[in-house]
Amino acid sequence: MIKVGIVGGTGYTGVELLRLLAAHPSIELFVITSRAEAGIAVADIFPNLRGHIALTFTAPDSAAAIAMLAACDLVFFATPNGIAMTQARELLAAGVRLIDLAADFRLKDVDVWQHWYNMQHACPELLPEAVYGLPEVNRAAIRAARLVANPGCYPTAVQLGLLPLIEQGVVDIKHLIANAVSGISGAGRKAEVAALFSERAENFRAYGVPGHRHLPEIMQGLAQAAGQDVGLTFVPHYLPVVRGIHATLYGVVNDKHLDLQEIYEKRYANEPFVDVLPAGAYPETRSVKGANTCRLAVHRPQCGDTVVVLSVIDNLVKGAAGQAVQNMNIMFNLDETAGLNAIALLP
Amino acid sequence: MIKVGIVGGTGYTGVELLRLLAAHPSIELFVITSRAEAGIAVADIFPNLRGHIALTFTAPDSAAAIAMLAACDLVFFATPNGIAMTQARELLAAGVRLIDLAADFRLKDVDVWQHWYNMQHACPELLPEAVYGLPEVNRAAIRAARLVANPGCYPTAVQLGLLPLIEQGVVDIKHLIANAVSGISGAGRKAEVAALFSERAENFRAYGVPGHRHLPEIMQGLAQAAGQDVGLTFVPHYLPVVRGIHATLYGVVNDKHLDLQEIYEKRYANEPFVDVLPAGAYPETRSVKGANTCRLAVHRPQCGDTVVVLSVIDNLVKGAAGQAVQNMNIMFNLDETAGLNAIALLP
Amino acid sequence: MIKVGIVGGTGYTGVELLRLLAAHPSIELFVITSRAEAGIAVADIFPNLRGHIALTFTAPDSAAAIAMLAACDLVFFATPNGIAMTQARELLAAGVRLIDLAADFRLKDVDVWQHWYNMQHACPELLPEAVYGLPEVNRAAIRAARLVANPGCYPTAVQLGLLPLIEQGVVDIKHLIANAVSGISGAGRKAEVAALFSERAENFRAYGVPGHRHLPEIMQGLAQAAGQDVGLTFVPHYLPVVRGIHATLYGVVNDKHLDLQEIYEKRYANEPFVDVLPAGAYPETRSVKGANTCRLAVHRPQCGDTVVVLSVIDNLVKGAAGQAVQNMNIMFNLDETAGLNAIALLP
Amino acid sequence: MIKVGIVGGTGYTGVELLRLLAAHPSIELFVITSRAEAGIAVADIFPNLRGHIALTFTAPDSAAAIAMLAACDLVFFATPNGIAMTQARELLAAGVRLIDLAADFRLKDVDVWQHWYNMQHACPELLPEAVYGLPEVNRAAIRAARLVANPGCYPTAVQLGLLPLIEQGVVDIKHLIANAVSGISGAGRKAEVAALFSERAENFRAYGVPGHRHLPEIMQGLAQAAGQDVGLTFVPHYLPVVRGIHATLYGVVNDKHLDLQEIYEKRYANEPFVDVLPAGAYPETRSVKGANTCRLAVHRPQCGDTVVVLSVIDNLVKGAAGQAVQNMNIMFNLDETAGLNAIALLP
Repeated sequence: MIKVGIVGGTGYTGVELLRLLAAHPSIELFVITSRAEAGIAVADIFPNLRGHIALTFTAPDSAAAIAMLAACDLVFFATPNGIAMTQARELLAAGVRLIDLAADFRLKDVDVWQHWYNMQHACPELLPEAVYGLPEVNRAAIRAARLVANPGCYPTAVQLGLLPLIEQGVVDIKHLIANAVSGISGAGRKAEVAALFSERAENFRAYGVPGHRHLPEIMQGLAQAAGQDVGLTFVPHYLPVVRGIHATLYGVVNDKHLDLQEIYEKRYANEPFVDVLPAGAYPETRSVKGANTCRLAVHRPQCGDTVVVLSVIDNLVKGAAGQAVQNMNIMFNLDETAGLNAIALLP
Repeated sequence: MIKVGIVGGTGYTGVELLRLLAAHPSIELFVITSRAEAGIAVADIFPNLRGHIALTFTAPDSAAAIAMLAACDLVFFATPNGIAMTQARELLAAGVRLIDLAADFRLKDVDVWQHWYNMQHACPELLPEAVYGLPEVNRAAIRAARLVANPGCYPTAVQLGLLPLIEQGVVDIKHLIANAVSGISGAGRKAEVAALFSERAENFRAYGVPGHRHLPEIMQGLAQAAGQDVGLTFVPHYLPVVRGIHATLYGVVNDKHLDLQEIYEKRYANEPFVDVLPAGAYPETRSVKGANTCRLAVHRPQCGDTVVVLSVIDNLVKGAAGQAVQNMNIMFNLDETAGLNAIALLP
Repeated sequence: MIKVGIVGGTGYTGVELLRLLAAHPSIELFVITSRAEAGIAVADIFPNLRGHIALTFTAPDSAAAIAMLAACDLVFFATPNGIAMTQARELLAAGVRLIDLAADFRLKDVDVWQHWYNMQHACPELLPEAVYGLPEVNRAAIRAARLVANPGCYPTAVQLGLLPLIEQGVVDIKHLIANAVSGISGAGRKAEVAALFSERAENFRAYGVPGHRHLPEIMQGLAQAAGQDVGLTFVPHYLPVVRGIHATLYGVVNDKHLDLQEIYEKRYANEPFVDVLPAGAYPETRSVKGANTCRLAVHRPQCGDTVVVLSVIDNLVKGAAGQAVQNMNIMFNLDETAGLNAIALLP
Repeated sequence: MIKVGIVGGTGYTGVELLRLLAAHPSIELFVITSRAEAGIAVADIFPNLRGHIALTFTAPDSAAAIAMLAACDLVFFATPNGIAMTQARELLAAGVRLIDLAADFRLKDVDVWQHWYNMQHACPELLPEAVYGLPEVNRAAIRAARLVANPGCYPTAVQLGLLPLIEQGVVDIKHLIANAVSGISGAGRKAEVAALFSERAENFRAYGVPGHRHLPEIMQGLAQAAGQDVGLTFVPHYLPVVRGIHATLYGVVNDKHLDLQEIYEKRYANEPFVDVLPAGAYPETRSVKGANTCRLAVHRPQCGDTVVVLSVIDNLVKGAAGQAVQNMNIMFNLDETAGLNAIALLP
């Protein structure tokens, strides 16, 4: 059994990680920390876990927590941005492998990171070693990694949707458009007026047009695939559902006679968690609710030169906790799908 | 034109009051205060008001605000509980009439108030004078009042639903049940985890079973109608909609041959804002969304001795701002329906 | 492996049954019929099942379907009311065991059934043999049954909530109240104006007050526990969520000094799918979303003589498909929780 | 008073038209027809209208209905596509002016119309005379029109968003993108599985990518502004709200130094129902819920050459019934805003 710790398990990413790990056949959930909820049973905060998880939150600074984390094989950080980087060095030194579900290790360029996240990076020397945890791109590196940066939710949906076009060099990479919508759980379990039910229900709006933090992450991934910088307009929107990301991606192809369907099917033929729908289909977010799947469909309206790719994930699963478990499975040579076979809840 | 001021206009009750007053033919909106938003245009916070309200929030402690409030004919308090009572004495002394949309003046018994609201009352000497602003009960007193305590949302729906039975003495008043659900806007525009979209959407639960603050208010109103204390079990629930209260009320009648439909129709025959539906009907919350109407229906299932009354209001209109405007109309001898003729938005 | 057939798998109960059976370790899904979708892959109708279920719908009247159903160990009917009764005799004769998720075999009194369901019963001779599939009441009989009538969703939530009080004889059984709300998936996947998104979203209303079909089913179960007829007022409401039933149950206890918490905890101590929450808690529907659990809490407000029981289930799981799988597990001597360990999706 | 008739008032567009006309100061609602609901009071179908509209539905083929419609000054068709064209000739001959809220007269090219709507046009000779009822483009022609084709909901939001760029010639018209989402009331009040609450809630998907019927309508309008054909990719999506359209529009500008904000503000300076938000703002759908307003914002992310325009309307108001009333006001020389001053419901 792999001994697993979680730092900061009281957000939505945390509870989802607990849900997945509770059902995982090869791990032992050893310790979970929370400053605010120290001493309280996990299942008292998240009643869906009653009968499944007996653990109690431990204060993160306690000697017990520090010792238990250091005794883990793997520690997940389900913390806000800026926390994992302050503890990574020490835990790695203790021989613990790390998966950060926040953004601390996602960008290779420390200046870009510091610009977008507006803080000093605490351990820039670890950035070169950190592996960006998108298994469909970096599987081999993930297997060997000590430190995995779990991708953001939008970046997962957008990159999986655009990579086949970019890798094949069939699209104008200077004018890509990613129009994306996200369920409100993506905003986290923080007390904020903007995320209140009465602000988001029966309402829809864009945000972050001048620049969302996921933009540099997406551009880094696409540029790596393209071998050069790409031009991307990314417009996220608040979607009044709890879970789900839908990205509608637009590009201009340089050859109208390409079999785009074939390109996508080939690219993801061996991927257990990417499902290319038949031509003409429309992926819907509920088809992946609670599942670690990304479903994609490719369209070329009116047989023109504009390709439209539709990509859906559950932001808390393939967009966060599920992808983290997938990365863990890879890192520890488990079946990549272990603990991730749940079928999406529909309706 | 009646010169109107609003203290604390940044909550949902406040914006609804602004929406209604902006369309009112006989008032001048003179000043609105907010500590947090001082200096900001009202329409910058609430974009639905763009083009309709040009006012800017004034800091409540500023000399300007104090002078302007004192120059008003009427001041609405759309503040949290405990604010109006600290300013009422001074404004009344200046000749201003007051409507408090919070709870400061709703209970006649200061000890009961202090127990349920867990604070010292700042002006208990005003409680005897304060008129409980339920026009269907207290119209004449409201007309003459200097100080009106606008009822709570649940109390409005429950009292309007139960009063005919109690006034006619046809129901067992020791075992009344009020099962009620409220849209989430009832929780206000405060940053709280419990009111997040991701906590309330696709979810339903009860709360406040041991005792909700609206319980003593309802019991005071029912006892007054009964001429004696009543026994009431009140269970509120969070309903995942923005607006709407639905109360399902149960009582045991002492005579199975009563024409309950007639009792209700007679009771509310002259009420402009209470609509008794035909026998067998089901009021739905959307039929009053944005409107100052309470719709009621009376059922006696299986011709038994249990009567079921269904009562719906929009918690922000008849349950708060609309009823406050209705009270204002009565206080200033305007047409009681002035500014309150909007038809509910359906769908 | 148990060979399983499903008649009528295109409703919400059907897709949920497929989701659960696809993950069940001890069954082989052998045949599924649908008139409307014959020849179409199950996963083309329900994309969440892509990659999990390869089966295609078979026309129910085809020789192939008839032969395959007769070759099953167990057939589930996920059909509208009135279908299972027309095929039960023949399948039972072929040695197949049956679980009907509709209402054909739920009531023991054929006249009562014909009154409420407004049709002639096709095989009244099977009613005495049919076992009402509420495992918490009838486990032993279910184990031996050839024909199980899976309970309705409201009846499951209401009976599990009220049975401890009735079995202990501590409540006035003449004036019980069940105020219940149901997610819209309970209305099924039928094209009806009343179930449109635009009719149900941001809306709430009661229905069926004169008499819902689940009323006689609940009263039959409660009467059996009481040893005499009970008086129950049952008011269902449409709740604008997809999944979830919440019942708020009211009764008058005859002894204020009873330890109600203990009564509930003892009653369900050995039940794998009934979770009695700590005193003072509020079960929420999302805590059972996708799970086969019923969560209960008992309150006695203001220490009076009225007890309030709160009961939640997922109408499609413990209220339908999950309970059917639980019954199957019992009938075939499998671990009762096999295939039913999924943790509810929260948020 | 203008004598007004409505053909087909039982859909969502119909009830919204009734809501607006009931509050209009200068019209008399004379007759409303419905085949399905003949003889039933309007307010029995739409309870929000109780106390506001006393009219009863008349059978459309009755002599009474025909005579009353012919006696109107104006008839609105709130019918499915293909109905207005069968009655237009006769009513026009009787001197009645017409506004069709469906699509029969929106396209100038009868072949294009017949291709997209898949039926024979019943009166192609009226197409040249019909005026496309977008007041911000065709105000003068509307004033003189006998026959107005009220625009579709998506076309209103998209055209108002893109017209300033196209009229000024500052954008590449060959690669425009309109990514739009619509509330489910846009699908109408028809019994269809696809529009069920349980299909749309907590779900999001695109549709109509190969070609939605609103595409030729938008392209006709944009081409007229451009003086040449335009290239547009239009992707609509189902948004799980009742009301609201949000269009996110993308184009490549040919000059990065343009003051786009000024272009928009100038274009709509005198328009009572188009509100250009300050630079950097995000229009939200709830800011126009129930109101006849289109709110717009213009962004140029990262100061690049891609412009992003955000446009919101209420699909039932500015996207249908409200715009129809606006057209009526223009046609009859009333104040253009008469009956259309309601403030959007927020929250």
